[in-house]
Amino acid sequence: MIGKLLKAIDEKNAPVVAGLDPTLELIPDCIKDAAFKKCGETLEGAAEAIIQFNKRIIDKIYDIAPAVKPQIAMYERFGLPGLLAYKETIDYAHEKGLIVIGDVKRGDIGSTSEAYADAHLGSVKVGANEFVPFGEDFCTVNPYLGTDGVKPFVDVAKRCDKGIFVLVKTSNPSSGEFQDKKLSGSEATLYETVGDMVEKWGEELIEDGYSSVGAVIGCTYPEVGKKMRERLPHVFVLVPGYGAQGGTAEDLKVFFDKEGRGAIVNSSRGIIGAWKKEPYKSSFSEEQFDEAARKAVLDMIEDINKAIGR
Amino acid sequence: MIGKLLKAIDEKNAPVVAGLDPTLELIPDCIKDAAFKKCGETLEGAAEAIIQFNKRIIDKIYDIAPAVKPQIAMYERFGLPGLLAYKETIDYAHEKGLIVIGDVKRGDIGSTSEAYADAHLGSVKVGANEFVPFGEDFCTVNPYLGTDGVKPFVDVAKRCDKGIFVLVKTSNPSSGEFQDKKLSGSEATLYETVGDMVEKWGEELIEDGYSSVGAVIGCTYPEVGKKMRERLPHVFVLVPGYGAQGGTAEDLKVFFDKEGRGAIVNSSRGIIGAWKKEPYKSSFSEEQFDEAARKAVLDMIEDINKAIGR
Repeated sequence: MIGKLLKAIDEKNAPVVAGLDPTLELIPDCIKDAAFKKCGETLEGAAEAIIQFNKRIIDKIYDIAPAVKPQIAMYERFGLPGLLAYKETIDYAHEKGLIVIGDVKRGDIGSTSEAYADAHLGSVKVGANEFVPFGEDFCTVNPYLGTDGVKPFVDVAKRCDKGIFVLVKTSNPSSGEFQDKKLSGSEATLYETVGDMVEKWGEELIEDGYSSVGAVIGCTYPEVGKKMRERLPHVFVLVPGYGAQGGTAEDLKVFFDKEGRGAIVNSSRGIIGAWKKEPYKSSFSEEQFDEAARKAVLDMIEDINKAIGR
Repeated sequence: MIGKLLKAIDEKNAPVVAGLDPTLELIPDCIKDAAFKKCGETLEGAAEAIIQFNKRIIDKIYDIAPAVKPQIAMYERFGLPGLLAYKETIDYAHEKGLIVIGDVKRGDIGSTSEAYADAHLGSVKVGANEFVPFGEDFCTVNPYLGTDGVKPFVDVAKRCDKGIFVLVKTSNPSSGEFQDKKLSGSEATLYETVGDMVEKWGEELIEDGYSSVGAVIGCTYPEVGKKMRERLPHVFVLVPGYGAQGGTAEDLKVFFDKEGRGAIVNSSRGIIGAWKKEPYKSSFSEEQFDEAARKAVLDMIEDINKAIGR
C-alpha cells in the first residue's frame, strides 16, 4: 500500500493529507440547517451535517490532495449515526480516488487487535460471505501493548495490501511524559525504542524504499523528526501538528529525505476550518467553506514544497 | 462511580466481571441459525446472533455478577451492525442493573480524547438537544500520549459520575517490551511510572478508599500486582487474564487488599465459551450455553473468594 501512497503523492506533487475531523463548530450553518431540517437536531442530524460537509470538502480537494485522514473519535462522538458518517466518508473518498488513513489509534492484546485489524484494514467472514467492515487503506495503531498488539495489524496489512502508522512521538504537549523517557540500560528513549520496532515490524513490507508500516511523529517536535529520519531509513512518517497545533513548514523539512520523500503532513482544522480564519475568512463566504478548504490545501502544498525544495 | 462498583461487588460478594467478547465461534449454532434465518449471513446476521447470545448470558448472570465488560473490538469487527449490538448490549445490561465497563482502550491528543470521552462516558449536544452516544459506566484508556490524552476522560468521569481504567501493565505476553523497561534516572519501570500517574490523576475522585480512576493490570503478572497494590493505595484494579489467558485464583490474591477489596477480575472466554469446554461441556448441552456461563461465573466467584479469604 505504501507504493500507492508514494505514487499518489508524486502524481499530485503534494505530500499532504487533509484531516477530516469535523466538529459541529467547524460546520457552517448552511450545512447544519439543511441537515437538521431533514433529520432534526439529533445524532442523525449531526451525522448528516458531517457527511454533507465532508463530501463538499472532498469534491474540492480530491484532485490536489493524495489522501484524507478522518479521525474516528469525531464520528464516534455522535454514536452509531456518527460512525455511519465515518463509513460513508471513507466510501466517498474512495469513489473520488483518495487514499484513506483511518486515524483510529487502536491497539490491544493479540486476539483483540486481530478483531480491530479485521474491522479497519481487513474483512470478516459471516457464514459463507465475506464483508469489509470499514475498509480504510491505512490506520493508526497504539504500540503500548508491544509486538503482539501490533503484529495482527501488520499481518492484515501484508495480506490485504494495506498499511499502518504506529504512534511513535505524538504531537501533543504532554507526549514527552512517557515517550521521551530514556530507557535504562540503553541509550534510547521510549519513542526511539518504539521507532526501532516499527523499522523491524515493517521490514517485509517495503516498496520503493519505504515500508507500509510507518510511524506517527508530530511536527511540533522537529528535533525528533530529524533524528528519526536518520535512524529509521525505511519508515514513512505521518506528521500531524502542522497549522492549528503550531507546526510550520520550516519545522517539517527534517521529516523528509533528500529527495523530498518519506513523509506526509496532516492538517485538519487548518483545512476544514479555513473558512473561519484569516486569510481565508475575508476572501470566502461561509457558503464557500469548500473553496476556502481548497485554497488552504493549495497554500499548504506550496508552503511545504518550498520548504523541502520539492 | 467507583462507590457504586464497590457496593455492587459487596452486595453480590463477587469481585468478578464477565467479559462479553463474542466471536462467531463462541456462539452456538442454535443462536446463529436463528439469527442468519432472520437477517441472512450478513453483518446484520452476525450482530443479531451476538445480541441474542449476550442477552441470554446476561439473563443468567445479572443476579450473581456486579458488572460486564464488552470488548468493543469484537463488535467493531462486524462494522456498524456490530457496533449497534455493542450499544444494545450496554443498554440491556443496564436494564438488568449491571455496571458496564466498556473495554475500548481509547486515547489520543487532548481535543480528540475529549470526543472519545463524550462518546463513551459523557454526552454530546446537537442544537438544543443532548444525547448519550454509548453510555458505558467505565471505559478503559491507553496512556501512551500522557496526561493531556487521559485528562479529558478524568474530567468527564468527574462531571458525569463515571470511571476509567488506565492500561498500566497489560496481560499479554509482549506487554513487557515497553511497559517493563526501567526509565533512566528513576527506579521505576514504565508501568510503575504510569501507575504513579494513575494514582495522581484520580486523587480527586476517591470514594470508600478507592478512586474512579483505576488501572488495568493483568493477572498473568502476579508479582506486578503485588507491588502495585502496595504502591498505589487508592487505585482500584481491573484484572484481566484469569482463565483462558492462564491466570489462576492463587495469582490473583495479591491484587486485593487485606479486606479482599481493591480489585475486580475479568474472565471472558472462560464464561461465555464455558459450554465448549470441560468441566461444563459434559454437564450442559450447546443449547444450555447460558446455564454453563452461569455455572462458570459461580465457580469463578467461589475460586476467587476462597483464595482471597472473602
